[in-house]
Amino acid sequence: MMSGKRAAGREIVLGRNNYGKSGIRLVRIFRDSERHEVVDLDVAVALEGDFEAAHTRGDNSSLLATDTMRNTAYALAKDHLASSIEEFGMALVDRFLEAGPTVERARVDITAFPWRRIEVGGKPHEHSFAREAGERRAAVTGGADGVRRVEAGLGDLTMMKTTRSGWEKFFRDEYTTLPDTDDRILATVVTASWEYGDLASLDYDRLWTGVRDRLLAVFTDHYSPSMQNTLYRIGRAVLEEFGEIERIHLSFPNKHHLLYGLSRFGTENEGEVFQATDEPYGLIEGTVERTP
Amino acid sequence: MMSGKRAAGREIVLGRNNYGKSGIRLVRIFRDSERHEVVDLDVAVALEGDFEAAHTRGDNSSLLATDTMRNTAYALAKDHLASSIEEFGMALVDRFLEAGPTVERARVDITAFPWRRIEVGGKPHEHSFAREAGERRAAVTGGADGVRRVEAGLGDLTMMKTTRSGWEKFFRDEYTTLPDTDDRILATVVTASWEYGDLASLDYDRLWTGVRDRLLAVFTDHYSPSMQNTLYRIGRAVLEEFGEIERIHLSFPNKHHLLYGLSRFGTENEGEVFQATDEPYGLIEGTVERTP
Amino acid sequence: MMSGKRAAGREIVLGRNNYGKSGIRLVRIFRDSERHEVVDLDVAVALEGDFEAAHTRGDNSSLLATDTMRNTAYALAKDHLASSIEEFGMALVDRFLEAGPTVERARVDITAFPWRRIEVGGKPHEHSFAREAGERRAAVTGGADGVRRVEAGLGDLTMMKTTRSGWEKFFRDEYTTLPDTDDRILATVVTASWEYGDLASLDYDRLWTGVRDRLLAVFTDHYSPSMQNTLYRIGRAVLEEFGEIERIHLSFPNKHHLLYGLSRFGTENEGEVFQATDEPYGLIEGTVERTP
Amino acid sequence: MMSGKRAAGREIVLGRNNYGKSGIRLVRIFRDSERHEVVDLDVAVALEGDFEAAHTRGDNSSLLATDTMRNTAYALAKDHLASSIEEFGMALVDRFLEAGPTVERARVDITAFPWRRIEVGGKPHEHSFAREAGERRAAVTGGADGVRRVEAGLGDLTMMKTTRSGWEKFFRDEYTTLPDTDDRILATVVTASWEYGDLASLDYDRLWTGVRDRLLAVFTDHYSPSMQNTLYRIGRAVLEEFGEIERIHLSFPNKHHLLYGLSRFGTENEGEVFQATDEPYGLIEGTVERTP
Repeated sequence: MMSGKRAAGREIVLGRNNYGKSGIRLVRIFRDSERHEVVDLDVAVALEGDFEAAHTRGDNSSLLATDTMRNTAYALAKDHLASSIEEFGMALVDRFLEAGPTVERARVDITAFPWRRIEVGGKPHEHSFAREAGERRAAVTGGADGVRRVEAGLGDLTMMKTTRSGWEKFFRDEYTTLPDTDDRILATVVTASWEYGDLASLDYDRLWTGVRDRLLAVFTDHYSPSMQNTLYRIGRAVLEEFGEIERIHLSFPNKHHLLYGLSRFGTENEGEVFQATDEPYGLIEGTVERTP
Repeated sequence: MMSGKRAAGREIVLGRNNYGKSGIRLVRIFRDSERHEVVDLDVAVALEGDFEAAHTRGDNSSLLATDTMRNTAYALAKDHLASSIEEFGMALVDRFLEAGPTVERARVDITAFPWRRIEVGGKPHEHSFAREAGERRAAVTGGADGVRRVEAGLGDLTMMKTTRSGWEKFFRDEYTTLPDTDDRILATVVTASWEYGDLASLDYDRLWTGVRDRLLAVFTDHYSPSMQNTLYRIGRAVLEEFGEIERIHLSFPNKHHLLYGLSRFGTENEGEVFQATDEPYGLIEGTVERTP
Repeated sequence: MMSGKRAAGREIVLGRNNYGKSGIRLVRIFRDSERHEVVDLDVAVALEGDFEAAHTRGDNSSLLATDTMRNTAYALAKDHLASSIEEFGMALVDRFLEAGPTVERARVDITAFPWRRIEVGGKPHEHSFAREAGERRAAVTGGADGVRRVEAGLGDLTMMKTTRSGWEKFFRDEYTTLPDTDDRILATVVTASWEYGDLASLDYDRLWTGVRDRLLAVFTDHYSPSMQNTLYRIGRAVLEEFGEIERIHLSFPNKHHLLYGLSRFGTENEGEVFQATDEPYGLIEGTVERTP
Repeated sequence: MMSGKRAAGREIVLGRNNYGKSGIRLVRIFRDSERHEVVDLDVAVALEGDFEAAHTRGDNSSLLATDTMRNTAYALAKDHLASSIEEFGMALVDRFLEAGPTVERARVDITAFPWRRIEVGGKPHEHSFAREAGERRAAVTGGADGVRRVEAGLGDLTMMKTTRSGWEKFFRDEYTTLPDTDDRILATVVTASWEYGDLASLDYDRLWTGVRDRLLAVFTDHYSPSMQNTLYRIGRAVLEEFGEIERIHLSFPNKHHLLYGLSRFGTENEGEVFQATDEPYGLIEGTVERTP
């Protein structure tokens, strides 16, 4: 059965659309005391609304320039970055909903890059930092109706277990050649995002750290029969610990490590020497959520 | 107004999920005659269905290994790549719906990289090729109910107009500093995807080339008052020419070129010397479609 | 035998050093007539000389700011880009040798990105362009003594032969498992650079196109027993045709294509279905040159 | 004055050349006890020697296949990775000098990616790890004459000072527009390599950590009048502390942070809000070494 109908007699119209500014690289230094703080962000703004005139008639009078969005991000960074990136996202969403004359919906995506104080003689330095791996993320969306949605997230978190992971008793068909294993390397680069329910009085920083710690802890605590099962365990554990969270989405690319055949060279390879490969890779994605 | 309700008394369940294999790099050579042909692909497979047992109980018995998906792509490439990538995608979707015991929906994304014959003495060579810029893409999705959906697309198409583009009379607020201009460089890297309606007897290759040519032609044929207007004009023109297409989605990152200030060095810069920048960039996205 | 001597009694001094500006993204439009021309460059400047005071005493008085180098590149682009990128490089080298009070040696590396006119109805458009694959490169170095050295080059040229290439009768040791083959895919991404001898009255554009064409033609014209032999044949042919060239350096990463085993699925794979891999890759590099 | 002489009467010959395998991604797990260790490497091999016959006559009989080099790296990883990557590099150099019949010189470049144990309840886990930023590097070269050279190094170390850095009293010419500043952000991604003198009984791991710590400490400990001065201070301090080191090379791309102009929006920006930029970037490179 094939879908589809003919074009005759149907009009051509503008469908869903959005525009904005991406790649706004913003660094905010807090220097009120000798002990400086660094916030290092990549911000992206996307607006939806009634932009029909711009599209169909070349009338720009209701479009906020994307350059203005950039200016706005830097201008608001002065006063609105003292707390979490989620709250900065909220301030930007509020501003764009108000500033764009026909904006109905605004979305702000923020990625924060972590910096750790350089330690000298075991003591964290006051104004010198080294970048760490990992990303903290936030996505705030809001509508002209006042509804706000906050998703926190993380990316670039690469983790590995050198044992206590397998892949067995899976479905086999005529193209299946992979043998069962009950001891493999499990490695992935986590991307996670979770949505908060009631936004009143959330401590976004504490929650973010809590989710990250829980995710890492569950990754270590069980024999993993599949990425899917580990994904579900992590999602469930996060929702059990944090009643503030409605749902969590996890994306796990499976960074395969292939046991390198050494017996042909007279050496045994008992789970010790692996070839890491980037392509192809399994990709396991899923959401764990609360029932309505 | 904030959304959200409390977690108490609600169950935690598996939500939407999918898994598959990405980054399957597949090259198919047709060598039936002296004049070889090359098809160079990156294939990604994603399956949805009832994978509850795997997630919640570690029972893999209904999971097709992602390694099997890889084998399947290579195996089917032998016989199913003679025609378009859309038809290869269809063959893979059919296969995965049949092979995975609990699969309800399959999606195959294909990117094809173009190779042009090397010319020697003005004559195209029979088995030697050089890679060109650009990507052809296809996304085929199918359900257990037999419904198929085909989106064709293209990526990595970088285009530039050195005049006949401006950005004027836009909305100005307190953070707006950008002056109006009626002559700027307009440059973007196009990503486009379009969905076909009735799939019976489509000539995918001819259609793809037709859409690409139309897109390029419209880009050149008007004074562009905004990316939005150019996007709409392109979308409309494609739908007008190709009744087979239901809708087209276009994504236009605005690759800004800033006029470099040379007057301080005693030189006039009359639209001749520009600084190209990658960050930040405007991002304009929209769909043009037929009414139901 | 191990090299090395003890540190005691030896002084610590500044050794070889250089500084400059990289990533200067410069687009020059020629718009004297309706038919515009585009030159799209990435420029890098590196200076050597007596910068001892800056390093050891924090005395910046003889340092040209790298920001000044950027300004200089844009300023000179107005008048010095009408001819080849080699001549633009020469103008910049001359300028930096003159401008930096203690500069003894300047090097300018330029990468040019190609744009082709969009064709509409078979006719090349006057001010609309699409980017092509490939890079043209130039490196100009000069000293305070007036000596200039010009290397032209190319990069990002991906080429493939689907037959007439093999790898046989190579040296085998205890770790050798690769079988001989007399029919494989040969694919590489060429980086080439060649140095001109006498710089008087060279037509850099004509020479560049000539070398590129020769390289491509030789790639097609023989059975390749190894990357090394193909490299040497290309180098030799270029030097034979162009007496202006002193030496050519070629770098050939071997982009491996592995025949995918299909017999286990009841299908023969007679050189038709390949897995492309990025890691690991063979890397073959060599210079072909004239005797002194 | 231009260099150069004519080609007439001069022969065309093979010049310097090398070949090898790059991108060998090798993971070694030590699992002798419950507490596993991970070594995660990217290895590149390059050989020089008499490969004339292969280049000029297509005679492969003295070439070691690059595939054999890959096998060798994995095979030797079993027994030779228990100590430092420098010693693994040495073992590979020794092997390739012995195995390749006409090899005169071998170079092995190794990049090691760091993994830190995941902490659960404040306790480092036995077999679960998260990747950190940074790279440790080693380059070992050796000749048929028995001479060995060991360079240790590091990469991907991004560091930033939020104050105590300036750029003042530099040389100004007609293209100079940058104002002096005595308070800016200084940020860079360090690449460093240092060569050891006498190789007898070096503790490579302790030395590597020592150099890294010293580099970070010096970065923090002074007002930086220029990247050049900070580079020299770091190099000097490393050589002063570690008599085992002959010379150190440092490469500092200057990751510029531009103060964003907020006064036009009625806000003061007292060194608090910056735009991070990637292009263009200053690049400061230098060697600090001992006199002979």
